Order: sequence, then C-alpha cells, then structure tokens
Amino acid sequence: MRNIALKLMYDGTAYHGWQVQKRDRSVAETLERALSPIVGHVVKLTGAGRTDAGVHAEVYIANFRTNSTIPCDRLPLAVNTRLPADIVVTKASEVPPEFNAISSCLKKEYTYRIYNSRIRNAFLVNRVWFYPKHLDEFIMQKAASYFVGTHDFAAVRSVGTETRTTIRTVHNFTITRTETLIECRVCADGFLYNMARAMVGSCVYAAEEKFHPEDVPRILASKNRTDAGPTAPPQGLYMTKLWYEESYIL
Amino acid sequence: MRNIALKLMYDGTAYHGWQVQKRDRSVAETLERALSPIVGHVVKLTGAGRTDAGVHAEVYIANFRTNSTIPCDRLPLAVNTRLPADIVVTKASEVPPEFNAISSCLKKEYTYRIYNSRIRNAFLVNRVWFYPKHLDEFIMQKAASYFVGTHDFAAVRSVGTETRTTIRTVHNFTITRTETLIECRVCADGFLYNMARAMVGSCVYAAEEKFHPEDVPRILASKNRTDAGPTAPPQGLYMTKLWYEESYIL
Repeated sequence: MRNIALKLMYDGTAYHGWQVQKRDRSVAETLERALSPIVGHVVKLTGAGRTDAGVHAEVYIANFRTNSTIPCDRLPLAVNTRLPADIVVTKASEVPPEFNAISSCLKKEYTYRIYNSRIRNAFLVNRVWFYPKHLDEFIMQKAASYFVGTHDFAAVRSVGTETRTTIRTVHNFTITRTETLIECRVCADGFLYNMARAMVGSCVYAAEEKFHPEDVPRILASKNRTDAGPTAPPQGLYMTKLWYEESYIL
Repeated sequence: MRNIALKLMYDGTAYHGWQVQKRDRSVAETLERALSPIVGHVVKLTGAGRTDAGVHAEVYIANFRTNSTIPCDRLPLAVNTRLPADIVVTKASEVPPEFNAISSCLKKEYTYRIYNSRIRNAFLVNRVWFYPKHLDEFIMQKAASYFVGTHDFAAVRSVGTETRTTIRTVHNFTITRTETLIECRVCADGFLYNMARAMVGSCVYAAEEKFHPEDVPRILASKNRTDAGPTAPPQGLYMTKLWYEESYIL
C-alpha cells in the first residue's frame, strides 16, 4: 500500500479547524471528500497537528494510504479542481510506510500576525489580530525570550486535550515589526493546546504592562493558566513551517 | 455648509461596486448609512469614480456636504465602528466648497494583479486573477507601452456609460513581476468603462500570442471592442492612487 504525503495551504476562516468534527465543516473532511473520487476509496487523512477554528496554514502536511496508482505529480491539480478555493494542495509525494504526518514531525513553526494600528485594514479581515493600541515590540521580544528552552508549559495551555507531559522545548521565539505589522514566530518540538496563542497573549500582556517580561519564568513555574496572559484570537495564527527527517523528501 | 472629503479603502468582494444600485449592496450606500447617524441627516456621497462589482480600492476618495460640527479627526473612528470590516475610512478632511471627488480628480492609478502560477494561492481568493498558464511579462510590457499617450480608447471600453468623448491620456502603464505575482499599474487622466480591465486583457492576449504587441495601435485605431483582448475579471483590479490639486490637502 502506498503512503502519500500532501503539502497544502489553507485559509482557515470558513473551517472549524483541521480535525474532523461531528457538526462543523473541517479542512480534513473537505480534503478527504475531494480525494475519495480520485483514488476510488474512502480516504482517512493523518494531519501534522490540530489547528483551531479560524487558524490558517501557509504550510501543512497530511498523509494517507492508498492502492491507487495515480502519479504524485498529477494529484495536486486533480484534487484542487475538486476543492474550494481556500484549500490548495501544493505537492504530493510518496513517502516510506512508517511516515506519519504528526508522529514523524520533528518541529513546527507558527507565525502569529498582529495588525497594530489605530485604523483597521480592509484587506486583513480574518487574517490578523487587529490591535489598535500601540504595542512595544521590544518588550514583547523580551517576554518571548523567556519562553525559549525546555520548560513545563502547563501555564500556557488550555485544558481539553490529553497529553502525557506538558514539557516542551521552544527552539526560538522572535517578534519583529514591519510598520503596522507585528510578526511573532515561534518554533518548538511540539505545541500544547492553545500554547502558541497563550504565549502571544502573554507577550501582549507584558507590552500592556500587566506584568513584567521578567515575570514569565515565575508564571511558567506556577503552572497556573490564569497567571499568564489571555489566549490571542485564532485569526492571527498561521502554521508556517514543518520539519521532518531528511529521508522524507516532501 | 461644510464639504468633507473621506479617504477610504475597501475589499470589494461583497459589494456590487461603488455606486448605489437598486437591488444590490454597494460601497457608497453602506458608507452613507454608516455616516447618517453620526452627522444627523441623510448623506449623499460623491465618489471618485465608478468601480465594478468585486473591484477593490486601496485608496478611494469621496465627499459629502454637512452642517454637522463633528471634528474631522474624530470622524474615521466614529464611522468605522458602524461599518463592516471590509470598508475602512482612513482619513477625513474639510475641503473647499468647490471640491468634488470626481470632477476635481486630475488623474487616477489602477493596479491589476495576476497570480501567475500553476498552483492557486489559498490566501488570494477574490484578490487576484489566477492565471495558471505562464505569461511573459516582457511581451505584456511591450503591448502596454502602446497604450501610453493620448488616444481614442473606444476599442477598450465597454458600452453602457454615456461619455462626451472616448479620448483619454494614459500617462504610464508598467508591468512588473515578483515571482508569481504580475502587477499592471496604469495611470491616466480618466478611464472609460472597463478600460483598465480591457487593456490588461489585451496585454495578456499579446502574451498568449493572439496578436502582436505592435498590433495595439491598429486595434486602437479600429475603435472596435472585438479587436482588442477580453476584459480581465474584476477581482484583480484595485484603485491605488488618486491625484488632486495641491490646494486640496486630503
């Protein structure tokens, strides 16, 4: 049986996240339904991770198993003609049988975008967190730096998902401003539920002087979600990069 | 009576153009309804020009007359809270009584965006003309150059709007590519109905070798709409710049 990895991008505005939901439309379900008539059987996708309602992916990886003989280079165009325009398959690759989009993933990068201007931007609706009050990106960067390293991240996760451990390693977390756009890029070996958005919310809280950047280690040590900043809204979050072992050429 | 000029931006996807329509929602009507409760009377806006359904504006100017004493610096925030997120007033200025957003306009720039890639982009739905076949931007530029100057543009206008003359002056028309994005910027003293889109469609036709760039002068001379290329779809078109006399500081 072949194991096919798909690289895709999606605007998450119209979807209830990646994962198949009982009631609401999900990206995975939409993609599975578009793939089925092409490969001739019901498709079950494994995604690189859960994304919430309204969260976007510039890059996302998913894999599925099939006996179909369709060449990988023909798959993107075939499936894109059956997909709504806000989900696009950019590449398909045959991968070794043991490849699994989530468990083979070595690290991930999320980018969170804040539009920091008194006046909204009509073209960025559902694409950024519109934040009219000025934020000092240097204070945000100082707070962000304290999240880097191997820590227990229980204080910046929302409950609701089972996990063996709340210890993760944040490899880097950088905040940059280009005029009115603040970009928060965070790379980790894995993310707890809402962890990226709660870390961004905490950096914004530090810029709002609700606590000092130096308080972040104490907040992490407390393991208490209410000590950290709020969860930033979903529409500013994008999955932007995924790393796998070199043997899996995607 | 005060004369107020508004600078605005809008994503035209959800609107039936600028102009007030009988049945469909227009940008002007939406803005007039948001302004009325602020100034305390029915507002009649004069816009810088007609834009079609689905066409966008990064910059647009409109003016209206009022006896309201609201300070101009408070107007944008007041009206934006009453507007849908895809229309944003960025500035309000008091202008001399004789100012009229359309008749005082000296020249206009439109930018047409083509996403020229085999694979769609999920984040550019309704924002570009997705064109999967490769286009040679140098051939397009050559065709574009023949439109520059004072000509009779009857061959690249759609009928339906009354106009005294079909002679216009195109000041410049440049085509640039940045990876998969082709931008066509055209500046003129005025545009006939669908003229910008028909000129872009003609440049694409030249790149498709349906005619030679050198054929453009002959096509213009024919004054025959069917000799030129097709009208490019609306979602790639943006009003991007407007020029007024210096005495009107907007």
